[in-house]
Amino acid sequence: MYKKDIKVLDCTIRDGGLMNKWQFSKELVKSVYESCLAAGVDYMEIGYISSEDQFSRDEYGAWKFCSEADVREIVGENNTNMKLSVLADIGRISFDDIRPKSESLIDMFRVACYDHQIDKAIELAHHVIDKGYEATINLMAVSKVTERSLNEVLSDVGKSRVEIFYLVDSFGSMYSEDIQSLMKKYTEALPGKTIGFHGHNNMQLGFANTIECIIQGARMLDATMLGMGRGAGNCPLELLLSFLKNPKYKVKPVLQTIQDYINPLQKQIDWGYFMPYMVSGSLNEHPRAAMAWMDSDKKDDYVGFYEEIMDTREDLK
Amino acid sequence: MYKKDIKVLDCTIRDGGLMNKWQFSKELVKSVYESCLAAGVDYMEIGYISSEDQFSRDEYGAWKFCSEADVREIVGENNTNMKLSVLADIGRISFDDIRPKSESLIDMFRVACYDHQIDKAIELAHHVIDKGYEATINLMAVSKVTERSLNEVLSDVGKSRVEIFYLVDSFGSMYSEDIQSLMKKYTEALPGKTIGFHGHNNMQLGFANTIECIIQGARMLDATMLGMGRGAGNCPLELLLSFLKNPKYKVKPVLQTIQDYINPLQKQIDWGYFMPYMVSGSLNEHPRAAMAWMDSDKKDDYVGFYEEIMDTREDLK
Repeated sequence: MYKKDIKVLDCTIRDGGLMNKWQFSKELVKSVYESCLAAGVDYMEIGYISSEDQFSRDEYGAWKFCSEADVREIVGENNTNMKLSVLADIGRISFDDIRPKSESLIDMFRVACYDHQIDKAIELAHHVIDKGYEATINLMAVSKVTERSLNEVLSDVGKSRVEIFYLVDSFGSMYSEDIQSLMKKYTEALPGKTIGFHGHNNMQLGFANTIECIIQGARMLDATMLGMGRGAGNCPLELLLSFLKNPKYKVKPVLQTIQDYINPLQKQIDWGYFMPYMVSGSLNEHPRAAMAWMDSDKKDDYVGFYEEIMDTREDLK
Repeated sequence: MYKKDIKVLDCTIRDGGLMNKWQFSKELVKSVYESCLAAGVDYMEIGYISSEDQFSRDEYGAWKFCSEADVREIVGENNTNMKLSVLADIGRISFDDIRPKSESLIDMFRVACYDHQIDKAIELAHHVIDKGYEATINLMAVSKVTERSLNEVLSDVGKSRVEIFYLVDSFGSMYSEDIQSLMKKYTEALPGKTIGFHGHNNMQLGFANTIECIIQGARMLDATMLGMGRGAGNCPLELLLSFLKNPKYKVKPVLQTIQDYINPLQKQIDWGYFMPYMVSGSLNEHPRAAMAWMDSDKKDDYVGFYEEIMDTREDLK
């Protein structure tokens, strides 16, 4: 499918870091950067941006903060066609800690929020736009949002100066028909804006849902190498690049980084298709219970997890 | 999605056995049978049917042959609502070795064929129908079949007494638009017949393509526990059962067998999402080269495999 306005965003380090508190070697981050460049990726999301007083550097690696010095050590001046993005959680970055774009290597802030935080998200997005950055708003957990609240979010975003709005399948619970329905709603409510998609892979639908989003008009697509990301992970970048017909995209550099760094890491960290994530996705549940189960010595007790989660669901008894 | 005429066929033993020459313990096969029963699965495909002079029992396990005695040891008289099927490859079973249905526990023969074998496939299918069995024809490798040849196959099947015809994504190379196109072709060419779907999971699209097939009218759906099957494997049964809304389907018994038998087996046998299978699927290639690579000491050399397969593809240089 050749749509030349499609942009691919790699968030291997940012989303993958949710599984190891961003404790990546510099060599790994450098390899992801170099292979994204060689693969024709449009944006690389290098981490979260957080104020230093919010988290401890003893516990979290550099990519929880994305200081200019740490970013520079990986990308130099980044004199390339690939842009750099960071993800901002509401309340984790002080406005005063955000430099003007002229003093930063970062090109884009993505603001993640829940529906009830939309005003704060727009405020932060406008703040970074005024400082010279691109901005997106990524509405999380939409599979639990009511129609009335979603209409209000879309109305607010529509009136804002934020040009990019993300459909996010936070729980990996969406089927193609959910994608069609939400994409229709988003594109109708936000004419002229770009819609992005960030999926999770609990039901092995991350890539399929990304394709469905493209068909329905989404033009910014998130993916990670070998699908590395929270819980079941994300749409695999290597699949997305193999699918897209634009000749600028190359899969081979990504295979090299997977071979050298990501596959070895997967032998130590359990992201991907595991039964607890499959169960939480199919039940439209936040993955936190599944992640806790996978971190325990009961990780291979699938029936135990199923029984535990079903015990919490009055509607399924 | 509640469509009460949907039938689910588990082929864990049959397709999974391609990875270990059907050397399963009786306890494992029994567990798959019992959990399929408890899960509401409509058909269980217990193996290939082959004449004893075609393969050695020293090399291959019981489910390469599916003798009545071996089947009986697992299912007893199978006085249940679940039917049993076997897969027949053209030329591997002598007509004389097929008993009348009245002397067999098997309910259905599925005949796998390439396009040039369609006459032989219909002959075998008619033979088993005349002996009292249900029959399907599963056309393999359709992603490499020309329009003219496919039209001839469909015309022949349309005139036959075979009631069930399978769309098979042998190479795991199909996207949703391929499914839509082929399902439209199959349903228009074969009014009144049932269309089935058997997918492979090279690009993590086995489940997504199964859903797309349901939307397009397919009513017999193949799946395997934890996706166990040749190479990248198949549509995972646990995902399909979680998706289908018919209350007769239960996922928990399948999770139990996965926990007890299939997950431990996956620690020994590499089926699933591996880069060589991803590459062969995305390039619409038979998985044999990827399977040979995965069986060698180069299995983690993804770039090496990519270069090898690209060297064979003049069209991609």
